[in-house]
Amino acid sequence: MSAPRLTTIGFDADDTLWQNEQFFRMTEKRFAALLAEHGDHEHIAARLLEAERRNLGLYGFGIKGFTLSMIETAIAVTNGDVPGSVIGEILAAGREMLSHPIEPLPHARETVEKLAGSYHLVLITKGDLFDQERKLAQSGMGDLFDAVEIVSDKTAATYARIFSRHGEGPQSSMMVGNSLKSDVIPVIEAGGWGIHVPHELTWAVEHAEAPVAASRFRQVADLGELPALVETIARAG
Amino acid sequence: MSAPRLTTIGFDADDTLWQNEQFFRMTEKRFAALLAEHGDHEHIAARLLEAERRNLGLYGFGIKGFTLSMIETAIAVTNGDVPGSVIGEILAAGREMLSHPIEPLPHARETVEKLAGSYHLVLITKGDLFDQERKLAQSGMGDLFDAVEIVSDKTAATYARIFSRHGEGPQSSMMVGNSLKSDVIPVIEAGGWGIHVPHELTWAVEHAEAPVAASRFRQVADLGELPALVETIARAG
Repeated sequence: MSAPRLTTIGFDADDTLWQNEQFFRMTEKRFAALLAEHGDHEHIAARLLEAERRNLGLYGFGIKGFTLSMIETAIAVTNGDVPGSVIGEILAAGREMLSHPIEPLPHARETVEKLAGSYHLVLITKGDLFDQERKLAQSGMGDLFDAVEIVSDKTAATYARIFSRHGEGPQSSMMVGNSLKSDVIPVIEAGGWGIHVPHELTWAVEHAEAPVAASRFRQVADLGELPALVETIARAG
Repeated sequence: MSAPRLTTIGFDADDTLWQNEQFFRMTEKRFAALLAEHGDHEHIAARLLEAERRNLGLYGFGIKGFTLSMIETAIAVTNGDVPGSVIGEILAAGREMLSHPIEPLPHARETVEKLAGSYHLVLITKGDLFDQERKLAQSGMGDLFDAVEIVSDKTAATYARIFSRHGEGPQSSMMVGNSLKSDVIPVIEAGGWGIHVPHELTWAVEHAEAPVAASRFRQVADLGELPALVETIARAG
């Protein structure tokens, strides 16, 4: 029996199609500088990460929740003595992130264009609905995707549902992304192909070990290598 | 030629199926009290509304954006002299809104249950993805809907797209909600039925005049009246 034919390819957005984490790191640096008299960068960043983890179940992923966690951390590390001007700077930093022009990653556009003719393409991303829609519109890649799914979390069940709705189920589908934890491991659990495109920056909360033993796990150095890999997999199927 | 058969009913969530605006008003009252020495309730509320309008294009709808706008307003009305403890109270108020149990509106559950057997039901709501998913899960009504669409804005194009994806187009569809501006007028523009269920509280940004001249506009006093109205429309079609 041959494997089901590959028909559908899911793409993560942040740090797969365009830069994201680097803007969080830049803002974190700016945040730590504002609070420099209350601790070094490492200490402030660790307190911020604690707040982000604590708030994840309430705020979900995205810049607005990150901004609220920065404000909470500023109050905590100053024992409530934070000046209004510092809070104002944090709000401004958050707004700047929300209006920052997107920076496409190498080969993103050409690869998506190349695959759009032969496969059903779905953008599958977490984060603020509003912000993700803005970035997709700005990327100019919106029309290349057959569907866009902005989800609150990425589990095996999420991929099973999305690839059944927009394709022939996870067995006929592939997910491409930079996060092993969110983009690769759960789609393999659901029965699909998980393709890892490493990004030099990955948020601590997204850390996971590579599923090297899984038969449907692959890794490419960048998106430029993806079309050839897709062709190999499609031919073997 | 008879009109297309009614097959699909869209429901708004906030202030249609469950209370929402009253939690914003309660929080606004608490917020104004925190800043009482800088102005009366009316003044503080007006400044907050200005900030919300200014930020709408960046934050979208939802509690996280509202919390950020409260913090911005607190800095503005105090000329930057807001104590950290007040900012802490605002953060706590936002977190409380995000974890508040939902309060279903009268007849919401029984009406959705009654219609679920005969029509394709779609929940169509704005706001924070994460928060709306929590409320739907908590309402226990999630399984009664055939689809859930959480959108960044509700325009005629939004309804045309959703009712084509989950039904036979807007001509065969009805949208039920408390906001004339978001739930009723745009769906009528798209060619569908717009049913207004007034709520005593409506956010200033959502204000619009009733489209009394439109042939597909109806109003019911509460959701308990909806099944009979649906039957009348279905029979006439």
